[in-house]
Amino acid sequence: MSKPEPTTFVKDIGEKGLLERLQQFCPPEVVGDDAAVITTQSGTLVVTTDMLVDGVHFSDRTTTPEDAGWRAAAANLSDLAAMGASPLGITVALGVPNNTPVNWIERLYQGITQCLQTFDTFVIGGDVCRSPVMTISITAFGEVQPERIIRRSTAQVEDAIVVTGVHGASRAGLELLLQPEIRQSFSNSAQQKFIQAHQRPQPRLDVLPILWEVISQFQLKTDSECKIHVAGMDSSDGLADAIVQLCQMSQVGAKVERSQIPLADELKDWSSLQALDWALYGGEDFELVLCLPPAIAQALVERLGNQAAIIGEIIEEPGVYLTDRTGKTPGEVLNLNRGFQHF
Amino acid sequence: MSKPEPTTFVKDIGEKGLLERLQQFCPPEVVGDDAAVITTQSGTLVVTTDMLVDGVHFSDRTTTPEDAGWRAAAANLSDLAAMGASPLGITVALGVPNNTPVNWIERLYQGITQCLQTFDTFVIGGDVCRSPVMTISITAFGEVQPERIIRRSTAQVEDAIVVTGVHGASRAGLELLLQPEIRQSFSNSAQQKFIQAHQRPQPRLDVLPILWEVISQFQLKTDSECKIHVAGMDSSDGLADAIVQLCQMSQVGAKVERSQIPLADELKDWSSLQALDWALYGGEDFELVLCLPPAIAQALVERLGNQAAIIGEIIEEPGVYLTDRTGKTPGEVLNLNRGFQHF
Repeated sequence: MSKPEPTTFVKDIGEKGLLERLQQFCPPEVVGDDAAVITTQSGTLVVTTDMLVDGVHFSDRTTTPEDAGWRAAAANLSDLAAMGASPLGITVALGVPNNTPVNWIERLYQGITQCLQTFDTFVIGGDVCRSPVMTISITAFGEVQPERIIRRSTAQVEDAIVVTGVHGASRAGLELLLQPEIRQSFSNSAQQKFIQAHQRPQPRLDVLPILWEVISQFQLKTDSECKIHVAGMDSSDGLADAIVQLCQMSQVGAKVERSQIPLADELKDWSSLQALDWALYGGEDFELVLCLPPAIAQALVERLGNQAAIIGEIIEEPGVYLTDRTGKTPGEVLNLNRGFQHF
Repeated sequence: MSKPEPTTFVKDIGEKGLLERLQQFCPPEVVGDDAAVITTQSGTLVVTTDMLVDGVHFSDRTTTPEDAGWRAAAANLSDLAAMGASPLGITVALGVPNNTPVNWIERLYQGITQCLQTFDTFVIGGDVCRSPVMTISITAFGEVQPERIIRRSTAQVEDAIVVTGVHGASRAGLELLLQPEIRQSFSNSAQQKFIQAHQRPQPRLDVLPILWEVISQFQLKTDSECKIHVAGMDSSDGLADAIVQLCQMSQVGAKVERSQIPLADELKDWSSLQALDWALYGGEDFELVLCLPPAIAQALVERLGNQAAIIGEIIEEPGVYLTDRTGKTPGEVLNLNRGFQHF
C-alpha cells in the first residue's frame, strides 16, 4: 500500500510557486507580463489586478490611508505603463471590518482618486464587502495599439537597457519611516524626497508618448519602416528582478554596469553600497526598464532627463552580470533570490 | 467649543450606506448598474468586480472549493449578462493564508474555469498574496454594442416585466444544506435540483442572443425602426430587490402578480408561502429581470421556455405592488428591507 501524499501548503511553495501552479488554468498567451492583453472585437485591452492586505502590504505605521490608496492605484497604473497602455479606468473591491471608521475608507478613496486624476483616469466601479481584515483589490484597464504593446519576451541581443529614473529612493523612504534614528544622516529635503518616493510613487505613463515620438523620429531620419520591438517591464519588485525577468522571458542575458545605475546622490554619499543594494533589490520605484536598439535608447534617455540612463546591454549568453568598469569591485551575477519574496 | 463629531463606523451605515458614500469618488455616469460601462477608442467595455471572503460569502460547510469557484465566476458572468454583454475574460486576485493546502486553491480554480469554459471564456490574469483570511476578488469584463446595453434606468410605463426562469431554488438548496432535517420533505431529485441551483448557478448569458433575435424579428414584422430600450438587471439579491431597484432607477413603479412568479413545483407543494418568500428575498438565482414592450416580452417568454414568464407591468405610480388576482391574500407593497443586507 502506498502512503498518502503529504499535503502541500501555500507556505511550502511560496507566491511564485503558487502562481506557476495556477497558470495551468490560464491560456498560455496571457501569462508572464505585467498585465494581460486581450483582443476584443474592436481593439486591444490590457488588464492587471492586485490585492493588498492590511498588515501585509500596508500598515498605519508607515502609511496613511491616503498614501495606501495612492500607492495601490500607482502600482496598477505602473503595470499598464509597463505594457505600453493608456489607462481607461480601475475598479476597486474593498473588504472592510465592521469597526472601520468610514472616514478611513473615504481617505483611502481620496488617495486613489488623487493618483488617478493626476493621470487623467478614474474609478469606474467597485464592490464593498465585510471582511475580518481590510483588503483592497484593484483591477486596472488600459488600451494600446497592438503594435505598441511592450512585452517582457522581446528583448534582443545588442539592445541597450534603459531605466527611466533613479532607483532605491522608495526603499530609502521606507527605511526612514521605519528607523527614525537614521534620519539624522540626511538633509530635510532628502528625507522628504525619499519619503515622497515611497508614499507617492509616480507611474511612468509620461514615458510612453515620448518613447513613441522618439521611435517615429528615428524611423523618419533613417528612412526605416522596420518595426521596432520594445521589450520592458516596471521595476516594482526591484531593478534586479526586472532585468532578470526580462532576460529569462526573452531567453537572453545582460551586462549591467554598476556605475551607470542612477542612484540618488544623497544616498550614494551616505553609503554607496547600501544605495546600490536598495536600487537593485529595494523595489517599488515603479520606473520602467526598457530594452531598445542603442540609437533609440540614447535619444530616449536624452529626451527623458531626470537621470534616465542606459545601464547596460542585452547579450546572448544567459545570466545577468553586474560589471564594474572602475575595477574597484569584482563582477557579480545577479539573481532573484535576494529580490522581494512576498511569502 | 464644539464637541468633536463622533466617529462613524462601517457597521453604522452598512454596505449600501458605504457604497453611497464612495460613489462621490466615481463619475456619476458609471454608478448604479450591475457593471460599469466604459467607452474606449474602439468599443464599449463592461466591467464588474466582486470580492468574496471566507466565512462571509462561502464556507466549507455548504460549499466545496470547486463550488465556491463556480459561484464566484457565475456571479460575475451574471452581472455581464445583466448589462447585455458577452464575456471577454476575468481576472482573479486571491488572498490566501499560508497554511492553505495548495490543492484547495487548485480546486477553487477548477471550479472557476469549469464555469468559464461553459460560457466560452477564461481567466486572463491574476494576483496571489498572503492574507490572514481566504479572499477571492474577481473582475469580469465583457463587450457589448452600445445600442444593446441593458440598464436599470430605462424601464418605461406599460413595459412588461419578464423573469427568465424559476426563483427561490437557490435559497431552497442552501436551506437543504444547512438544515438536513428538512430534506425528508423533498424527493431526491428535487433535493438535487435545488442544491445544484445553489452550488452551480447558471448565468443567463444564453438569453442575450435570443433577446436580440426576438427584437429584430419584431422590428421586421412591424416594419419598425424605432429603438427598443431593454431595461434589466440580474436577480442576484432576490427578485424583490431587482424589481425595486429597476423601478427606483427608472423612476417608475410596478405591479407584480404573485401567481405569475415562477416557483419550483416541489417548493410550492411543500409551502407556497415559503416558496414565494424565497423567490422574492432568497437571492442568488442569477436569473434576468427584464422590462420590455409587452409584445416583445410575450415573444421572448415563448422562445425561452423553462418557466420564463411575464410577472407584471411597469406603472407610473411609484412603489412596487404585489397583487393577488385570486383574491386570497391582500395586496402588499414590496420593499428592500427584507432583501439581502450584507452587513
